[in-house]
Amino acid sequence: MPVKFQFKNPNMGAWVLLRQVHNLISKCEDQVYSKHGLTTEQHGVLMAIKHIEGPVRITDIARWLDRSVNSVSMIIDRMVKAGLVRRTRDRKDRRTVFVTTTSKAEKAYIPATAAGWELIQEILSSLSDEDKLTLVRLLETMRDKLYDYLGSSGVVEEVRVNEIKNMAQFKDKANEYKSPSNFQS
Amino acid sequence: MPVKFQFKNPNMGAWVLLRQVHNLISKCEDQVYSKHGLTTEQHGVLMAIKHIEGPVRITDIARWLDRSVNSVSMIIDRMVKAGLVRRTRDRKDRRTVFVTTTSKAEKAYIPATAAGWELIQEILSSLSDEDKLTLVRLLETMRDKLYDYLGSSGVVEEVRVNEIKNMAQFKDKANEYKSPSNFQS
Repeated sequence: MPVKFQFKNPNMGAWVLLRQVHNLISKCEDQVYSKHGLTTEQHGVLMAIKHIEGPVRITDIARWLDRSVNSVSMIIDRMVKAGLVRRTRDRKDRRTVFVTTTSKAEKAYIPATAAGWELIQEILSSLSDEDKLTLVRLLETMRDKLYDYLGSSGVVEEVRVNEIKNMAQFKDKANEYKSPSNFQS
Repeated sequence: MPVKFQFKNPNMGAWVLLRQVHNLISKCEDQVYSKHGLTTEQHGVLMAIKHIEGPVRITDIARWLDRSVNSVSMIIDRMVKAGLVRRTRDRKDRRTVFVTTTSKAEKAYIPATAAGWELIQEILSSLSDEDKLTLVRLLETMRDKLYDYLGSSGVVEEVRVNEIKNMAQFKDKANEYKSPSNFQS
């Protein structure tokens, strides 16, 4: 049996556990996506490319993932080397660079996304339906407080609206991948 | 008023919210620690150095933070340049390098840790005491499921025991810093 630590202070307990759970989720996702030849970061970039409408620039991916353009550029560099994406220049404006996926990436993305979705179901199966709804409510309350703390500037509001839009799209896509008939081998 | 998005699927809702809340917490921590001239990563390294007993090697810090030795080495390089830590060689075995903090780091660490603790209290004040205990219980259940998913190997067990030990120590330290009389200016 694992050692159980009782946090005397529930504030500290919640804080530490949120970090632990997030880090453990990341480790599980790394494990799941690596089986399909992708890192979790690479899977995130492919997901962004899939969900952004029209030609995709690095700045679009960065905004979608809520990360810096620099860090996304570095991930894209490695993905080009790994044969997962290509950089192409706009014919009209040669300064603009678009990112497109390769067939190698396409083949990895669909089963990886399905496996990621299975992971989510598996981990959350440890909670009852009622507990899941409670968890969502408590996390929503914390999220709103965090947004307030960060200030209700236009930037934060834009991030929030984008996140909501992105996640709604992701949810729809993930549901599409739920059925094994959608797998491509 | 912010746009409220209702997740039809509570699994997806919980998953997305866990990531959102974690990322927002990171942003808040970045903001808080930067006011004391530290990044969140640097604060984490200083916390590790403070809590590890005896002379501290990079491998000890990496284990404490549950990160790779390479990534910690890079953080330490930047911290040396920023005048926050020093690398010293063991007199007996010149191949062993220890990391020690500078007085500049000491001066930043105590008020930064107190401010971090205030942040925790502030964000969690959005939940009732009962809700906090519920959140802790639900996250503990998820954490245990995640550990099971990752396999009950000795490595995972060791990480778990270390985390628990570290966090217990952190809690004690954080409580010490709660009172303003502990601040050093």
